[in-house]
Amino acid sequence: QHSDVLENLTPKVRKRVDALRDIQGQHDEIEAKFREERALLEAKYQKLYQPLYTKRYEIVNGITEVELASEDTKMEEGEEKTPEEKGVPSFWLTALKNNDVTSEEVTERDEEALKYLKDITWCKLVEPKGFKLDFFFDSNPYFKNAVLTKSYHMIDEDEPLLEKAIGTDIDWYPGKCLTQKILKKKPKKGSKNTKPVTKLEDCESFFNFFSPPEVPDEDEEDIDEDRAEELQNLMEQDYDIGSTIRDKIIPHAVSWFTGEAMDGEEFEIDDDDEDEEDDIDEDEDEDEDEDDEDDDDDEDEEETKTKKKPSTGHKKGGRSKTVGDGQEGERPPECKQQ
Amino acid sequence: QHSDVLENLTPKVRKRVDALRDIQGQHDEIEAKFREERALLEAKYQKLYQPLYTKRYEIVNGITEVELASEDTKMEEGEEKTPEEKGVPSFWLTALKNNDVTSEEVTERDEEALKYLKDITWCKLVEPKGFKLDFFFDSNPYFKNAVLTKSYHMIDEDEPLLEKAIGTDIDWYPGKCLTQKILKKKPKKGSKNTKPVTKLEDCESFFNFFSPPEVPDEDEEDIDEDRAEELQNLMEQDYDIGSTIRDKIIPHAVSWFTGEAMDGEEFEIDDDDEDEEDDIDEDEDEDEDEDDEDDDDDEDEEETKTKKKPSTGHKKGGRSKTVGDGQEGERPPECKQQ
Repeated sequence: QHSDVLENLTPKVRKRVDALRDIQGQHDEIEAKFREERALLEAKYQKLYQPLYTKRYEIVNGITEVELASEDTKMEEGEEKTPEEKGVPSFWLTALKNNDVTSEEVTERDEEALKYLKDITWCKLVEPKGFKLDFFFDSNPYFKNAVLTKSYHMIDEDEPLLEKAIGTDIDWYPGKCLTQKILKKKPKKGSKNTKPVTKLEDCESFFNFFSPPEVPDEDEEDIDEDRAEELQNLMEQDYDIGSTIRDKIIPHAVSWFTGEAMDGEEFEIDDDDEDEEDDIDEDEDEDEDEDDEDDDDDEDEEETKTKKKPSTGHKKGGRSKTVGDGQEGERPPECKQQ
Repeated sequence: QHSDVLENLTPKVRKRVDALRDIQGQHDEIEAKFREERALLEAKYQKLYQPLYTKRYEIVNGITEVELASEDTKMEEGEEKTPEEKGVPSFWLTALKNNDVTSEEVTERDEEALKYLKDITWCKLVEPKGFKLDFFFDSNPYFKNAVLTKSYHMIDEDEPLLEKAIGTDIDWYPGKCLTQKILKKKPKKGSKNTKPVTKLEDCESFFNFFSPPEVPDEDEEDIDEDRAEELQNLMEQDYDIGSTIRDKIIPHAVSWFTGEAMDGEEFEIDDDDEDEEDDIDEDEDEDEDEDDEDDDDDEDEEETKTKKKPSTGHKKGGRSKTVGDGQEGERPPECKQQ
């Protein structure tokens, strides 16, 4: 296709395009160096964050105790050391529940299991490119795995173009699987079988995050368009969760736990000049939808979700500096505001 | 809301959370330094790209001529210097038409005007944060402006949270406005008026990019949810076009002009290990939808669009390195693959 474009050029224009391609090649070499330097910069800062993450881990899980002032050490009468008092209970669960993107994935059934979450970490993958999330769990009555992992393999990190996502197979204890529900159906009238029929059915759960949508096999080139779009959306949503955990939850877990990092609602007034996401300190509107679709399952389940997920928001009452309509005649040599 | 979370903690846990907040504060200070260093790095490379962009500009617009080998200078008999031969005709128009996101915006009516596009540049905005695109035009029969500008004001650059987008008011020559169409309606039967009734109507055009969706005024807090979502989508789409021009078209304009940068179709086999977007060198499937909805307008218009816009794609035939199911017991001190 595009070779035609070049072939239809006159020899002179073609020569110019060849010169342009040479310039583009020089640009791309410089750009490759930029990506390299940026990766080094990111790695340097990841190392600087690391000791802080370790300290956080140790406090959250009661490995090191925070020094208390003398008045704090006095125990009130009747106060007892309960097991809940170790570290900061439900730290990661609370953080995940305070973020719009991740909270949507956590069902009430999941909460008990997510209380055993001790840490979430991430690291870059080099070959294939991408990143990996590790979820570290205390021994718990739900599954045997100590670590649940989710990896994203990218075609292009800057885009990002996702090749595929891979999750850990969770080794559930019998009857403890949170991604399936037991359906009990009463036997049909007149049926000889008087026992209720039980059936396992897939259900919503945060732990489905470890069974990401699979892209079809090589030979199924003729996947229909609707299915492709659906898959695309599922993969985007899955990637959205993963990158939210990497970019927001992990670096700012404390702010998510306290609620200080909560996203401002769209169209919300915020006159601060500071724009860091952690500085937004606003009450979140209760925005819960109770889905009561658990018709005939025998488990007591109620899903609490927050729906809003603003990815492009807007702040009102803001500065409105208008840009001139640019009657500048010739192209200025360089942008002044850079 | 979140202050309750803290108030309900026992004094000991509260103390731990205070220590965690201190750690988070240290993290955020380091992170601020990271953002600063990254901005410096980006600025450094923008400066390195600048002379190449200038060279590109001069060749594209025939300001400097590419040196020709002696056999190229020989003019063939009958060959004449036509005005089209200056520089590289339709350079930016062709680049915009070869990218999935921007091509969707360019109508056939726009093409003549976009041939006068001499350059596109961008720069960062500091106060308010964001970026600005400048479109430099040769004098043309459509509008008087030499530069059309589009600015994006961001709340959070990393997110990105868009505050608003501002575009230049285009000063169209009479009857030349490309964002409106003249509708001629035959007078009703029996009407005294025998002249056809003419009416201007908004229509699709790339130049609508300079009239971005406006966010409602401060006092209209109670905007209804459907309208808010529609606005959200329009702003996202608008931002998508702007950031595509900034991140793809401007740095790789030559590759877009030649077609070398064209996005691979989703589910396409590509066994290269190189993942840079400019290295993808594939024929694009013709994927044109002809919308013939120009019922009663008197202008001959046919819109050619390419619909697919993969933001999360996937490459087949790829590497499939599976990640272990992580039975690692204790939390490892650091991720090995970093």
